[in-house]
Amino acid sequence: MSTNIRHTLLISCCWLAGVFSHAQEERDVNKVVRSMYDEALVDGHAYKNLETLCKQIGHRLSGSLAAERAVQWGYSLLRSYGFDTVYLQPVVVPKWVRGKEEVLHITVGDKKTQLRVKALGGSVGTNGKLEAPLLIVNGLYELEKLSEEEVKGKVVLFNEPMNARFINTGHAYGSCMGQRTSGASKAAEKGAVAVLVRSMTLKLDDEPHTGSLRYQDETKKIPAAAISTKASTEIAEWARNASTPLLVELEMNCRDEGEVPSFNVIAEIRGSKYPDKIIAFGGHLDSWDVGEGAHDDGAGIVHAIEVLRIFKALDIKPQHTMRCILFMNEENGNRGGIKYAKEALLKGEEHILAVESDRGGFAPQGFSVDATDEQLEKIKSFEPLLSEYELFFFRKGYGGVDINPLKDGKVALVGLVPNSQRYFDFHHAETDVFENVHKRELELGGAAMAGFIYLYDLMEVNQLPPSILPLKE
Amino acid sequence: MSTNIRHTLLISCCWLAGVFSHAQEERDVNKVVRSMYDEALVDGHAYKNLETLCKQIGHRLSGSLAAERAVQWGYSLLRSYGFDTVYLQPVVVPKWVRGKEEVLHITVGDKKTQLRVKALGGSVGTNGKLEAPLLIVNGLYELEKLSEEEVKGKVVLFNEPMNARFINTGHAYGSCMGQRTSGASKAAEKGAVAVLVRSMTLKLDDEPHTGSLRYQDETKKIPAAAISTKASTEIAEWARNASTPLLVELEMNCRDEGEVPSFNVIAEIRGSKYPDKIIAFGGHLDSWDVGEGAHDDGAGIVHAIEVLRIFKALDIKPQHTMRCILFMNEENGNRGGIKYAKEALLKGEEHILAVESDRGGFAPQGFSVDATDEQLEKIKSFEPLLSEYELFFFRKGYGGVDINPLKDGKVALVGLVPNSQRYFDFHHAETDVFENVHKRELELGGAAMAGFIYLYDLMEVNQLPPSILPLKE
Repeated sequence: MSTNIRHTLLISCCWLAGVFSHAQEERDVNKVVRSMYDEALVDGHAYKNLETLCKQIGHRLSGSLAAERAVQWGYSLLRSYGFDTVYLQPVVVPKWVRGKEEVLHITVGDKKTQLRVKALGGSVGTNGKLEAPLLIVNGLYELEKLSEEEVKGKVVLFNEPMNARFINTGHAYGSCMGQRTSGASKAAEKGAVAVLVRSMTLKLDDEPHTGSLRYQDETKKIPAAAISTKASTEIAEWARNASTPLLVELEMNCRDEGEVPSFNVIAEIRGSKYPDKIIAFGGHLDSWDVGEGAHDDGAGIVHAIEVLRIFKALDIKPQHTMRCILFMNEENGNRGGIKYAKEALLKGEEHILAVESDRGGFAPQGFSVDATDEQLEKIKSFEPLLSEYELFFFRKGYGGVDINPLKDGKVALVGLVPNSQRYFDFHHAETDVFENVHKRELELGGAAMAGFIYLYDLMEVNQLPPSILPLKE
Repeated sequence: MSTNIRHTLLISCCWLAGVFSHAQEERDVNKVVRSMYDEALVDGHAYKNLETLCKQIGHRLSGSLAAERAVQWGYSLLRSYGFDTVYLQPVVVPKWVRGKEEVLHITVGDKKTQLRVKALGGSVGTNGKLEAPLLIVNGLYELEKLSEEEVKGKVVLFNEPMNARFINTGHAYGSCMGQRTSGASKAAEKGAVAVLVRSMTLKLDDEPHTGSLRYQDETKKIPAAAISTKASTEIAEWARNASTPLLVELEMNCRDEGEVPSFNVIAEIRGSKYPDKIIAFGGHLDSWDVGEGAHDDGAGIVHAIEVLRIFKALDIKPQHTMRCILFMNEENGNRGGIKYAKEALLKGEEHILAVESDRGGFAPQGFSVDATDEQLEKIKSFEPLLSEYELFFFRKGYGGVDINPLKDGKVALVGLVPNSQRYFDFHHAETDVFENVHKRELELGGAAMAGFIYLYDLMEVNQLPPSILPLKE
């Protein structure tokens, strides 16, 4: 409680424009950011909230019962914090179900081996057991060079590995994810009967990593599934040494079950001066149907909740309305993000900033900014202060899938950028569980978002001191 | 091989001063750094070298047989790479042995509980079973306020937790490690019979973390041991609820066994223009006698070896002599670092730069620089290039224990700074094993050191282009 009182006083002082010199204001702005970090690191809720989401609900694919339980959990939790408003925004989402566990066998000569496999999200099933010879290609580019004759009737294995040369693993992901998202239709065009895809991770292990695919409308839908990087590497080795073609047996029971109603979950603290101008921030509540969706995107969910909770706990009165959004259906449709932006447009809501956390609960490095040059320059003015919190990265880049539909050339879209090295170790795999999230790294992410949003809220109304300098540890 | 040839050409071009424009040189310097990263990330040896050190040798306290095996391993490995020189530098080191596993029981009323415990390095043993009532203090400051009467005959438990408010966990460590290093003598001054110390980690778990203590010469040496953060927290809880004092039974068989001969292991690539000027870099080969010394400091060892290996693999001819040093005895005496500096002074060797990696094998953030303002400014000129590799931190700070004896006001001492969040989870504990090191994070550390050292080597002879700008991914 003493913290609350101290900050109430502090904030009150801070807002008495003209009474204090700039030097004092600098110190006050700094103290508020420092207190946000203290709150997150000493009395934070992010870690225990993530534990509840992961362990009591677990994975939560759009349209599943677990996703609806996650909506209820989010709604109840946000209500418990006593924010000004908490409400549900209806969203219709696709429902895809994996069905009975997939089975994959590869036969080399007279040796048949069972391998772990996960259907890609959105894939059609095999309608019984599918059997066909295997064809291995090193990504989409290599497939393109093959004739229909060479591909027809085959199961195509896309075996392009993520490129270890990229420093940011997200770039490595981006550069070869096409084989997962478009591989099935590209192979179907040439008569393939199914595809297997090497998992999108730099780690060599036994985990199949699922993820979405997109069928082209005009092409036959064929089954598509992920296998582990180790399995993919091994199969390629078998093929090199085999005298006869490898044979694939694949059985997948996944299916499309149409659409069902669901919700975005939204909570607000009303702006003290500009209640009609909105600073939005969020993550996505849905996950793939494996693991616990801990990094993807339980971390983003508890980050966003933590931002609003910190403002409330420290009694910081924002100038603009602070809106926390738990988006539904980022993984396979982005219906939540699209619906949110549509509603905002219909209501004539003005967003000045949207921040997304959907790159895992790792140690934050900074922010990726999709905004005007002028907005970026203003954001860069935060650097001297925020670099003391090990936030060094303030660059043009993508904001995030959920906030992207808000893009209108005026609102600044910002993505929290954690260190990327471990993200794809867990991404869309059974290993994306609570135990693989580090408490302090998670907490620092929430604090980073809170500090950034606090500074942006002041900046937009010219209440930021002309230079902001850090308090030293 | 194609990489080697490409770089040989590249480097040859680069050194033909005046033939190429500055713009081309910029590009060349950049390409070399890029190729160093490629080598480390695609064909790196750091991870497999660390696995060998951890799994075939394991922990390796100075004076132990394992430490001598580590010397042999380091020497053979460096020889296998075909560097210009590989040699052993004799160092006399202390030998302290833990003896039979320690046993700790705490009795509350009629309930006796056994807890995990690790003698602090350098501690005397208990000479049979020691029994005494427990006194809990929240760090050195609280002990200071107590009278001799209150402390006499007690086992003092120092229960000050590391402060979670610090962003860099190293600062949190620094601010409360005094209770581990000085607690025994401070408590002995007031008549305590032994001390227990809460482990230096922000994680609440069951691992006792050992580490060094320093006895004051004039004070009685009393036994000192670490217990886990969970145990420490629980004991304090028991004490709060107990009606009678808690009783401690402690048995430790550790002892000092004098001094024994050992070695620093050194390898060099001779400078092409200034062979008498040295760029030194290293980590420490010894570890505590728990876990596998994977982060502390197996990571630093394989980083240093990797730097020299990368220069050789890419056929980069340094201007100055590149010297890789595997220091012995950082943990409990720093005899290796002191000996190295003494020898350098005796031989009249001129060091222009020394770089140390001893903060774990985590994702690198930058460099901590103990140098003149002018040197720091020059180092900061690397930032535009190195920030593309997610190296953002170029600040005044400590270099490292092993290189510190070189300090003479002229040589720049530089510490590699990885992200600190996970370091103290493993530091000096049984969990500091190979499995807790991330392949890419480790590799990036070696690449960061190599790139930094390459740029410094050029800078010192004014061969760096006036501005160095990054190649984009």
